[in-house]
Amino acid sequence: MRILLLNPNISVSITERLAQVARSAAAPGTQITAITAPRGVPYISGRAEAQLAGAVVLEMLAEHGPGHDAALIAAFGDPGLWAARELFDLPVVGMAEAAMHTAAMLGQRFSIVTFAPALGHWYQDCVAASGLSSRLAAIRSLTSGFGSVDMVAEEKAEALVKLCDATVREDGADVVILAGAPLAGLAGQLAQKVPVPLVEQVAAGIAQAETLVRLVPMSGALLRRPVAKTSQGLPAALAARIAHADA
Amino acid sequence: MRILLLNPNISVSITERLAQVARSAAAPGTQITAITAPRGVPYISGRAEAQLAGAVVLEMLAEHGPGHDAALIAAFGDPGLWAARELFDLPVVGMAEAAMHTAAMLGQRFSIVTFAPALGHWYQDCVAASGLSSRLAAIRSLTSGFGSVDMVAEEKAEALVKLCDATVREDGADVVILAGAPLAGLAGQLAQKVPVPLVEQVAAGIAQAETLVRLVPMSGALLRRPVAKTSQGLPAALAARIAHADA
Amino acid sequence: MRILLLNPNISVSITERLAQVARSAAAPGTQITAITAPRGVPYISGRAEAQLAGAVVLEMLAEHGPGHDAALIAAFGDPGLWAARELFDLPVVGMAEAAMHTAAMLGQRFSIVTFAPALGHWYQDCVAASGLSSRLAAIRSLTSGFGSVDMVAEEKAEALVKLCDATVREDGADVVILAGAPLAGLAGQLAQKVPVPLVEQVAAGIAQAETLVRLVPMSGALLRRPVAKTSQGLPAALAARIAHADA
Amino acid sequence: MRILLLNPNISVSITERLAQVARSAAAPGTQITAITAPRGVPYISGRAEAQLAGAVVLEMLAEHGPGHDAALIAAFGDPGLWAARELFDLPVVGMAEAAMHTAAMLGQRFSIVTFAPALGHWYQDCVAASGLSSRLAAIRSLTSGFGSVDMVAEEKAEALVKLCDATVREDGADVVILAGAPLAGLAGQLAQKVPVPLVEQVAAGIAQAETLVRLVPMSGALLRRPVAKTSQGLPAALAARIAHADA
Amino acid sequence: MRILLLNPNISVSITERLAQVARSAAAPGTQITAITAPRGVPYISGRAEAQLAGAVVLEMLAEHGPGHDAALIAAFGDPGLWAARELFDLPVVGMAEAAMHTAAMLGQRFSIVTFAPALGHWYQDCVAASGLSSRLAAIRSLTSGFGSVDMVAEEKAEALVKLCDATVREDGADVVILAGAPLAGLAGQLAQKVPVPLVEQVAAGIAQAETLVRLVPMSGALLRRPVAKTSQGLPAALAARIAHADA
Amino acid sequence: MRILLLNPNISVSITERLAQVARSAAAPGTQITAITAPRGVPYISGRAEAQLAGAVVLEMLAEHGPGHDAALIAAFGDPGLWAARELFDLPVVGMAEAAMHTAAMLGQRFSIVTFAPALGHWYQDCVAASGLSSRLAAIRSLTSGFGSVDMVAEEKAEALVKLCDATVREDGADVVILAGAPLAGLAGQLAQKVPVPLVEQVAAGIAQAETLVRLVPMSGALLRRPVAKTSQGLPAALAARIAHADA
Repeated sequence: MRILLLNPNISVSITERLAQVARSAAAPGTQITAITAPRGVPYISGRAEAQLAGAVVLEMLAEHGPGHDAALIAAFGDPGLWAARELFDLPVVGMAEAAMHTAAMLGQRFSIVTFAPALGHWYQDCVAASGLSSRLAAIRSLTSGFGSVDMVAEEKAEALVKLCDATVREDGADVVILAGAPLAGLAGQLAQKVPVPLVEQVAAGIAQAETLVRLVPMSGALLRRPVAKTSQGLPAALAARIAHADA
Repeated sequence: MRILLLNPNISVSITERLAQVARSAAAPGTQITAITAPRGVPYISGRAEAQLAGAVVLEMLAEHGPGHDAALIAAFGDPGLWAARELFDLPVVGMAEAAMHTAAMLGQRFSIVTFAPALGHWYQDCVAASGLSSRLAAIRSLTSGFGSVDMVAEEKAEALVKLCDATVREDGADVVILAGAPLAGLAGQLAQKVPVPLVEQVAAGIAQAETLVRLVPMSGALLRRPVAKTSQGLPAALAARIAHADA
Repeated sequence: MRILLLNPNISVSITERLAQVARSAAAPGTQITAITAPRGVPYISGRAEAQLAGAVVLEMLAEHGPGHDAALIAAFGDPGLWAARELFDLPVVGMAEAAMHTAAMLGQRFSIVTFAPALGHWYQDCVAASGLSSRLAAIRSLTSGFGSVDMVAEEKAEALVKLCDATVREDGADVVILAGAPLAGLAGQLAQKVPVPLVEQVAAGIAQAETLVRLVPMSGALLRRPVAKTSQGLPAALAARIAHADA
Repeated sequence: MRILLLNPNISVSITERLAQVARSAAAPGTQITAITAPRGVPYISGRAEAQLAGAVVLEMLAEHGPGHDAALIAAFGDPGLWAARELFDLPVVGMAEAAMHTAAMLGQRFSIVTFAPALGHWYQDCVAASGLSSRLAAIRSLTSGFGSVDMVAEEKAEALVKLCDATVREDGADVVILAGAPLAGLAGQLAQKVPVPLVEQVAAGIAQAETLVRLVPMSGALLRRPVAKTSQGLPAALAARIAHADA
Repeated sequence: MRILLLNPNISVSITERLAQVARSAAAPGTQITAITAPRGVPYISGRAEAQLAGAVVLEMLAEHGPGHDAALIAAFGDPGLWAARELFDLPVVGMAEAAMHTAAMLGQRFSIVTFAPALGHWYQDCVAASGLSSRLAAIRSLTSGFGSVDMVAEEKAEALVKLCDATVREDGADVVILAGAPLAGLAGQLAQKVPVPLVEQVAAGIAQAETLVRLVPMSGALLRRPVAKTSQGLPAALAARIAHADA
Repeated sequence: MRILLLNPNISVSITERLAQVARSAAAPGTQITAITAPRGVPYISGRAEAQLAGAVVLEMLAEHGPGHDAALIAAFGDPGLWAARELFDLPVVGMAEAAMHTAAMLGQRFSIVTFAPALGHWYQDCVAASGLSSRLAAIRSLTSGFGSVDMVAEEKAEALVKLCDATVREDGADVVILAGAPLAGLAGQLAQKVPVPLVEQVAAGIAQAETLVRLVPMSGALLRRPVAKTSQGLPAALAARIAHADA
């Protein structure tokens, strides 16, 4: 099985981190192609940047999707997820939704713990889009700044453990998601330090993508695809897809 | 007062239609600058196309926003609305939200009537984002195809009247919104043929933009603006805005 | 355009305050007729008083409505709003709903800040009636008593600023409504002291009433009007309206 | 135990019908005082008339409440219910809420069946106020007109049975409420003709009022009573109550 | 009237406590048969134990139900309630739902106060099942341990009063339910010490069971009964009921 | 990996059908132990039978759980699911929740299609428990009777395809779940005949159980386990578990 992992950020170091966690989490026989957004920001921290990133995700899928069995949008917040489902013929999974649906089978209420407060509103939208708001205990975030986004996981590991503890104790969370691409892989390292299960977002994303491929033999777009249109100014592969002119 | 009307489609003829309705609806002293998306599709019919259009809206705002008092995103569905509110210092109104909040002061339940079934899911998301789902009677759409999107308003006027009647009678709508940029201006023409108020989407958008300017002296972005970031591959004006480097 | 501003309280001083803010907020050409409830209480602080005030609003509208293009019920809590919409042929706007729908286009979540805790339950009902509960950050109220309701705005200005700050910081409000007729005009004075937009309730009410008049040429009651009935003991104008016997 | 049954309509014949059903439903030892609104309409069919009726309910309670152990507002739609709870020291029950809470212990979803379509919106508000919207199967109404409101129960009995059957079969109702004061007593007569339990609204109201008296020894108003106020133009008993000046 | 009070716990002392409160609360002429679960745990503190207890409730009803007019499941949390309604021909009331529907007619928001934190999740499910979540102020629990479940009411009376006060003051509760079979009878003793009405759970359960019997002449199961089935390993009375083979 | 598949029915033929689908869906290296309920009914068709089955599930888990890495409750409706999560140390997945969370990543709205109308209420509860009600398009059921529950899948295949088509066309479902243990394996056979993805419930259950095992190294019960209790009349393994006395 071939899964396309899309990093909607331009940080190659984050792509590498995501790819590493994805490969160690994948089932035997699953191959991961990891690609980095050709334009955008180093990390996404809100709806404006997610709007741009989601558009880039569609371009990336148009160009690199063919030849893969499924795709994983590897930014918590799932930029472009439903747009992608309307346009392409393969299962597309969002890292946030995968983590949330997985968490919902581990406990009654899950919390989302992340490293920057700006992410709160965007993640809230994302929970609402999944329909799982009633299962959410809380979204909690560190409020202190951080040095480099590449190092934030290591720099803040201890503070994040405290935040996990707090959300278990004060918000009644049964399970916690460590959220945000820069925290990829951290759940595994901290699992023994937190009294409830920690869901690793990348591992959840890969596992759910594998599940969809195993369960659903695709023979066309999942959602109702818009009628063919000519467009202007879009990259060739995406324009062809929109025009129903791709092979 | 200067309002920037953004058509997120590439159809200049639709921009002209929107601008004409906007100008006749505007208060004395309000000037309308109408611009057309530099790239994209002729009309937006779903979430994939809205994802792309919303990103273009941000580019348009970064380049053309300065010098205006407010902006109106003139596509029903409001692509890029909350993203724009995070990034820019002026009030930004969506044509759909303006029509819905206005309708909510005219009756207890409003219906949205449009010309193409593909729009339903996208509009549903948009109603949910406004928080007004409990005020929605129904979203109804013509199911027959149409010739040209430029002419759909005139071609389908009669069929749309029937659909308005049906949603009043069967769904209990107290007020109806004729939705979709290609239908701009039609509400005024059909008002006498429908037994409940018809909300003209463009007029509602302009009136609400004027209201926000009158009420709120802006001195910065409305929502919490993300921290400054360098970016890659974005148009200069947008990159400058994201870097907090615009004048 | 002629707008009837109804003060459902018996305090003439509050009517004057409301009228002054309304006139300075109105568009050129809009005339405001401001009237005071002929019976009731000096200010409304709960559902019991609002029940009585709402009935008086209907009497006031029956007698003074004719000759106006729209009416504004100028008490936060909107006593008699939906009742009025069932009975009369002109657009009727509530000061609370106008402020809330306006706030909803300025930020994702709004807070309501007021001067007396007794108002909380009533305002909560009002938010629920608007369908905007999911957009509400919090309702916050001063808990200290106050001298005279005429002077409460000036007396408590500083304490209200602190409350606005608290709801921004602790409840995540993007925008704040200063609520309650005795606070009319205060939002303008405090705007520079609060880090998010303050919505002036009277200005919002007038602007939304103007918008409805501009958008909707009325030719009958907005909502389904009840069948004609004889009544007993009601003021003549209201009885005539209920009997479908008004001119 | 003494229960005050308030008919918020001016129809003495309906008061008599209500009183008769109430007396036959009451527990041994319960006495019913039935009073008719001194002003208003012959029957209430919407929010405008309910706004007026609710205000009259407060006057009636101020004058006739003393000496009773509980009060029943005997109009489906419960005009003035929460207002009364804020103002008076005895338990007050609404006929609609009593029927709905009772129905909720008989089946998972209840329907409300009534005789005039104008009542739908008002009843919907009333279900929402109770918090039981998720338990509602449907509100169904006859659409044919009727002769006299005094005779509508007898005139339409057969048609109402058909409507009950339809809501059981098509809406999945487990239990049905025959709603509207003019239908008082009808549930008992039709019980054998409908395949699910029919809740008699007056009997439910009396039983729930009795329950509250048995359970809760009152020593003051149930809800937070507003501060004392002078008023103007209100009946003496009500003014005294509002001024905290009643004995 | 004969009411079967089912204690789904195995503690005979709790059954006696429940029976005593029930008898003193019952109307003249109501007889209470109180029975204790033949197997299970001394008190139920969560969903696992409630799952087991609910199954035992069905066995108890199959064996002891005949000859009674109604049944009361006398554990807060209502184990087996909807299951029982599907299977048996008499009204079955849950102690929690009875208390909640009663509380909803006494105030706008009720709190549930109990003695052990483990109960919170289960009670939350129970509130949700009633549809009354929007009426709930809070669920509050003592966190200190306790000696014997038989004595917990007396041991913790003072601490529970403090918790009631706190939920009134901090959560805005208008009415409080003292919840959990071991607290039966405590509401009456503490009524004068708490500033809002306390609902006695057993009294509410008996009163609501009596109401249903008075209102609804039963002639079959309330809910759609499943088709007849042979079963294996179930007690004879229950197996007969499931097989539609009971007399 | 060892997964315990629990059939909460007593039909060995259904256990065999479930086991066969599970084995063909499992990843290489996953072993399935399939067991049949020792008592109960041939198939579960409502809440009463689910209440009994859920209790038996706990007994089965106490006796057979040890030595397995996860358990799958293989009845649509998930009897005993949350109870099991409170009591046992391994991940437990319900077939319904697994199918629904999987479906939620394939389309915006899913429908549940089944073979007997009695199942509707129970399945509705199950959707609500998952928090996914807003993602549900409809629950649809055949209304004709059927011969044997063993053969219902084959007997009704064609009618079920028609029902799937109807829910896609009329309810707007993007994906359909064929629900009910007797339909296990049917989704695979009918996939080519339905225009949207069909989710195979057993395959989804196994895949999600595998995912949880891969993601979460268990070191104790997932949810807060109740305090130790002595019990009476329960099977030895379950009593030991409740007493915290199992090895």
